[in-house]
Amino acid sequence: MSTGTFPGLEPYLAQERARVEEALERAVDRVRARLEGHPEIAEAVAHGVLSGGKRLRPILCVAAWTACRERIEVELPGSEPRAPGGGPVEPTTGTSQPTAVYDLASSLEMIHAYSLMHDDLPCMDDAELRRGRPTTHRVHGEAATMRAGAVLIPEAARRALTACEALGCPETSARAATRALLEASGAGGMVGGQWIDLLGEGQSFGAEELDGLHRRKTGALLAASLVVGAIAAGADEARRGALERYGRAIGLAFQIADDVLDATADAETLGKNPSDAALDKSTYVSLYGLAEARRRARAQVDQALGALDDAGVHAPALEALARYVVERGR
Amino acid sequence: MSTGTFPGLEPYLAQERARVEEALERAVDRVRARLEGHPEIAEAVAHGVLSGGKRLRPILCVAAWTACRERIEVELPGSEPRAPGGGPVEPTTGTSQPTAVYDLASSLEMIHAYSLMHDDLPCMDDAELRRGRPTTHRVHGEAATMRAGAVLIPEAARRALTACEALGCPETSARAATRALLEASGAGGMVGGQWIDLLGEGQSFGAEELDGLHRRKTGALLAASLVVGAIAAGADEARRGALERYGRAIGLAFQIADDVLDATADAETLGKNPSDAALDKSTYVSLYGLAEARRRARAQVDQALGALDDAGVHAPALEALARYVVERGR
Repeated sequence: MSTGTFPGLEPYLAQERARVEEALERAVDRVRARLEGHPEIAEAVAHGVLSGGKRLRPILCVAAWTACRERIEVELPGSEPRAPGGGPVEPTTGTSQPTAVYDLASSLEMIHAYSLMHDDLPCMDDAELRRGRPTTHRVHGEAATMRAGAVLIPEAARRALTACEALGCPETSARAATRALLEASGAGGMVGGQWIDLLGEGQSFGAEELDGLHRRKTGALLAASLVVGAIAAGADEARRGALERYGRAIGLAFQIADDVLDATADAETLGKNPSDAALDKSTYVSLYGLAEARRRARAQVDQALGALDDAGVHAPALEALARYVVERGR
Repeated sequence: MSTGTFPGLEPYLAQERARVEEALERAVDRVRARLEGHPEIAEAVAHGVLSGGKRLRPILCVAAWTACRERIEVELPGSEPRAPGGGPVEPTTGTSQPTAVYDLASSLEMIHAYSLMHDDLPCMDDAELRRGRPTTHRVHGEAATMRAGAVLIPEAARRALTACEALGCPETSARAATRALLEASGAGGMVGGQWIDLLGEGQSFGAEELDGLHRRKTGALLAASLVVGAIAAGADEARRGALERYGRAIGLAFQIADDVLDATADAETLGKNPSDAALDKSTYVSLYGLAEARRRARAQVDQALGALDDAGVHAPALEALARYVVERGR
């Protein structure tokens, strides 16, 4: 099955993005209200969070939640998947998922936004552009951006806890979902990877180091997106594990596809700064060449789909999303 | 009752600090293990966290937990205050509180450490000294310090969740305690206050702005220390509220005492950077003069003690700690 045979990918993505944007606006409104009188940090938060982007992490979170809820509904027909304040759970397209699922999902994008804001700071990558726009610190200054990034971490964790409550998750699920978010945001998550990334300038990594780097950098939070959704939906260990493997595989596929895009597009098209290759970092393309890098990305997608299949998770949205991460533009 | 009539303040503080240090070392060990191969961030975490200091926030957290557990024990003699892996709960001195209470309490010090590390960075206060030692970024660099600070936030929240589990807290208490920690670490907490603080350079604040500033800057996390301890102990709303009022009052007293210390000691004695007065910030001393500032600090201590009394919380440790915050050196 190719992306083309999934009939609604584009409308699905557009619709999911719209609901994620609404959730992010709610999150930013809350931060604004709490930072009343100190608009510098609040506006830096808004700039960093409401900056477009694919919103892949929250969309994956909702897709995982949906896939696991449907499964539970099928297996336990008497169960009640409707959440307080939300509509009924409908198959796959996710049109009428409860608002609280998007609030939960938005917590992952808040962590992602924090990591980008801090990555772009002068003492890290010193980036001027992100998605074709000036980076947050270029607009709102270094101090406000550093603060805003750090504020997003507790705000995201709080939001995850609250959303789990609103969804009526069992208490242990609320804690487990929040813990998964925190793990991916902390020492064991992307931070380690970003750091290796910075150290990697001017160094050459081998294939193993590069995989390890990207597993932590992109993979930890992508995998957490799926795990958080699965836990909140009450999925069993086997399905949580399958969705985590799916997440790690598409995270790696995503990073390889990024390297391929970097190697085949110029800065104007990308709307961002000189690529890793220009900074003399190891990339999948520099390591394997374009054709082999592409093959490896596709192999990761196959692995992701295999993980779903093994656990009996049949979710056209997740299947299409796996292909999307390597076939997308930026 | 003066501090002198609380027989064991110094031994009590020494003993509590020792247990807090052990808990912080456990926390740092965990971060080190997870950042294996990336010692720069791990060492910045260790530098920022294991840097001495009064450990007032975790000590207050344990004292609040102890006071509320004792009360519950008295009121419900059949209840079981012993925590998994911990010894019996003994009165006030806290010698044999379970290890997990110190783990919970250490989460507040981790947030405090993050805030100091980020405050000292060049884009904020650009401080060279903290407690007589070079600041973390002077030793480990800006990038590692920024990362290390941000890593401490999810690590602290994770630790609070885990410690509540180990204490056998009711599920809702674990979430509520963690949420209180997150609230004080986020947009509604100290960050807003620190920001006003920075803006305050070269400005003059009135009494009201200054109180508002310090309530957020120092008060939010100090109050949270007590609230987290109280919630984890299963305290009712009235006692939680009383401990929060106590925390806000001693937070303000602490800050006034800091201004008094700044005005009466030189940089060498303080082991830190030029005082706020030297940076032309408003202080309680510049606003009220030394004698009135001291009177106001004592009035806050009285208010703190009144809050405990109103709620029937009789805890010599908390009473002595309230006096300690204004009578201490640095």
